[in-house]
Amino acid sequence: MPDHANDELIRKLTTALGKSGVLTDPADRMAYESDWRGRYAGNAICVILPRSTQEVAQAVALCAAAGASIVPQGGRTGLVGGAIPLAGEVVFSLERISALRSIDPLGMTMAVDAGMTLGAARAHAARHQLDLPVLIGSEGSAQIGGIIATNAGGSNVLRHGMTRQRVTGLEVVLPDGRVWDGMRPVAKDNTGYALQQVFIGSEGTLGIVTGAVLQLVPAPKSVLTAFCPVASIDAALSLLVKLRSSLPDALVAFEYMNAATVALISDQRPELAAALALPGGPSACLLIEAEDFTGTEATQDRLHDALVSGLERGEITDALLAQSVAQREAFWAFREAISFAQNGLGHSVKNDVSVPIGSIPELLTRGSALIAGICADAQPICYGHLGDGNIHFNVSPASRDHADALRACEPAINAALADLAEGLGGSFSAEHGVGQAKRDSLARLRAGPELEMMRRIKSALDPQGLMNPGKLL
Amino acid sequence: MPDHANDELIRKLTTALGKSGVLTDPADRMAYESDWRGRYAGNAICVILPRSTQEVAQAVALCAAAGASIVPQGGRTGLVGGAIPLAGEVVFSLERISALRSIDPLGMTMAVDAGMTLGAARAHAARHQLDLPVLIGSEGSAQIGGIIATNAGGSNVLRHGMTRQRVTGLEVVLPDGRVWDGMRPVAKDNTGYALQQVFIGSEGTLGIVTGAVLQLVPAPKSVLTAFCPVASIDAALSLLVKLRSSLPDALVAFEYMNAATVALISDQRPELAAALALPGGPSACLLIEAEDFTGTEATQDRLHDALVSGLERGEITDALLAQSVAQREAFWAFREAISFAQNGLGHSVKNDVSVPIGSIPELLTRGSALIAGICADAQPICYGHLGDGNIHFNVSPASRDHADALRACEPAINAALADLAEGLGGSFSAEHGVGQAKRDSLARLRAGPELEMMRRIKSALDPQGLMNPGKLL
Repeated sequence: MPDHANDELIRKLTTALGKSGVLTDPADRMAYESDWRGRYAGNAICVILPRSTQEVAQAVALCAAAGASIVPQGGRTGLVGGAIPLAGEVVFSLERISALRSIDPLGMTMAVDAGMTLGAARAHAARHQLDLPVLIGSEGSAQIGGIIATNAGGSNVLRHGMTRQRVTGLEVVLPDGRVWDGMRPVAKDNTGYALQQVFIGSEGTLGIVTGAVLQLVPAPKSVLTAFCPVASIDAALSLLVKLRSSLPDALVAFEYMNAATVALISDQRPELAAALALPGGPSACLLIEAEDFTGTEATQDRLHDALVSGLERGEITDALLAQSVAQREAFWAFREAISFAQNGLGHSVKNDVSVPIGSIPELLTRGSALIAGICADAQPICYGHLGDGNIHFNVSPASRDHADALRACEPAINAALADLAEGLGGSFSAEHGVGQAKRDSLARLRAGPELEMMRRIKSALDPQGLMNPGKLL
Repeated sequence: MPDHANDELIRKLTTALGKSGVLTDPADRMAYESDWRGRYAGNAICVILPRSTQEVAQAVALCAAAGASIVPQGGRTGLVGGAIPLAGEVVFSLERISALRSIDPLGMTMAVDAGMTLGAARAHAARHQLDLPVLIGSEGSAQIGGIIATNAGGSNVLRHGMTRQRVTGLEVVLPDGRVWDGMRPVAKDNTGYALQQVFIGSEGTLGIVTGAVLQLVPAPKSVLTAFCPVASIDAALSLLVKLRSSLPDALVAFEYMNAATVALISDQRPELAAALALPGGPSACLLIEAEDFTGTEATQDRLHDALVSGLERGEITDALLAQSVAQREAFWAFREAISFAQNGLGHSVKNDVSVPIGSIPELLTRGSALIAGICADAQPICYGHLGDGNIHFNVSPASRDHADALRACEPAINAALADLAEGLGGSFSAEHGVGQAKRDSLARLRAGPELEMMRRIKSALDPQGLMNPGKLL
């Protein structure tokens, strides 16, 4: 838009939201214009900080009237640049719309504003011995609106499903500024097309989620956590099958890290490795978690027996069982250090693929070979949610000196891994979404009726095409 | 369409599908033109029985070219007339497309043709110690395509969610005859809009589901079933809360029947009541089910203790624990006899509403008062899935003599109960869907942006408006 039109829009937004609700100074905007990895950055006309759904609706109507594009933004913890402006949009940060609306312990639901962090929502639930079971490392920053817009996954999907399964109702400001109140707090509602499902995972391209009703679950009495060096990926799968059959009602996490991942963290964060006192050199490891609702030793005994059997069969070479909350946190700190440890090598390539579980060994073997063929001084950093077939197939340079070489290979690596996952019956983006990063893959791998239906839905619900342009489609 | 156009279409369909694939004789068509209750009936141009996805696609293309409307049809077990023709459509019965495509025990998924019955799919899963946990009384007839098109609920939604949560991939013949192959066997796939979620629950108005990939779960080692006369609805809720907290990982069903329901079955099917040897006169009853994965007595002990506490508090007045598979089946036979027992009184009004669980007592009290005010000689037959807030708020005449009086009151009763449920924050159709029966309620209670978005999606995906006209929207 021409500058004077921008000025006019900013003036109207300021009238509607007040001066503190509209950031125009580049220094104030900066934090909202890039992601935490410094990978995506753009320039917004302005960043607005509405204080209510009504203010969001007013601001959207003003943008629509001016033909200005809109970028909805949560905690900016995404990995595909979906919430970062390109150039010339109005960024809608939801951070000031963060209240608990209500909580119903009997119905096990909570109604929250979209700007509440996941961590805050979980804390509210915990006061009623309930949980919002979405386990992601960024819960302190990630917002409810963001995890809904991206259909966040995490470490307990094995047991509790994706964010999609936690949502019973939504409030959405539509691209014309009207508010859709779909805040129904019931799990069963077969009344026409599943509109909320269309918005979940739509990455801000169809509207702005301003509120949600979330289905909670009973909090377990205790959580059992084990950290195990594992002999091979086949051994890991064999153990998974045994655990699934011996405690299918209790197993919530089955996380895998390949040997290179363990070595990387041990190298970059030796204090985390020391806390685990891992025996011998780095090997691939598993982080396993089970929930107990019995309040007895029964679940712990079942987990213990299954791990002892795994040791006897040689599937795992050791089994550390967390003896305290602090030790459990040390296990998870190791797991969650991976992203930052990768950043320490100057450049990291992120891929987030899923395949049927039985195809994981083939994915790892063939994927590593493909990468070796594309980029000589690169190492696959593979880890993720083995229990549900989701591997973060990342790549780091062998050292900081090789970061530029890896950067040059990134598009070829991404395409090769996307094709491989899809060829194995899986998905080129399991939980991170499409955003800016995977648009090419979406256009290429979903071409035909699938992409066409998505485009038709986009046109149907955002006919002006103002919502988060340049993302997803 | 004029007769000669119909004849021409029938000729082309016969060329494509063969003579046995196209039913034109009224006597042959009849079974496909009405539902099992005899409530909905229409007239189709013809009924076709394609043998493959490719034949469905061919036939859809022929209908689209001729401008003929299409009614997709599964097992015709629906309760809202969604799969029954009105007049002049082509009925697509999927019954001949019923093969198991593949099953992956490691990934716990199965790929099936849409015409396979739910019961057959569950039997295939059971051979691998897995289950497709959708528990509905009609599993012997209901087809996979039908439970997907209606997002079927059932008696274990409390634990396993709706059919929506069981689907990882779909194959759909689109309204222009193209085939969308979305048969991805992975639970995590964040690649654009959730198209499969749009088709799930769309009641055949957007396309024809011809195949699905379904997420299975480990089959429990055993199932524990209890049948308990309960003091009141408040007592039932109190017991539910205790059970949820003492065995949240195991509780799969918590079914309620009011005293009138129990009396109706005892009257119409005395042999079923005798098998239960219910003490005293009919009172409201609960059917409770828990799964055991431990292979020990631990779960049974927890259930037993919880029921003994319920007896001591006076919440339940007795507790029958099934001691055999035959006894478990007798409990469920009693529960599943309700629909047929209602038919025995000449006319039954069916409503299927959900509210937040804490509002169930208010729903029952106010709903019964509303019905009494509308129709003097009617009795509320209330039962359903109390554990997830879903009550089948049905109404029967006091006796066969009052059937006509009740029939006249049906629209007023339906409107009153729909308004009541929505006013309590719930839904006018929890699991049965909209079909022909609840179109008025959808148009009235979802008016505004919600209905408008549905219409836009319909136009976007079925621009000719040929798919299942007169249903849902």
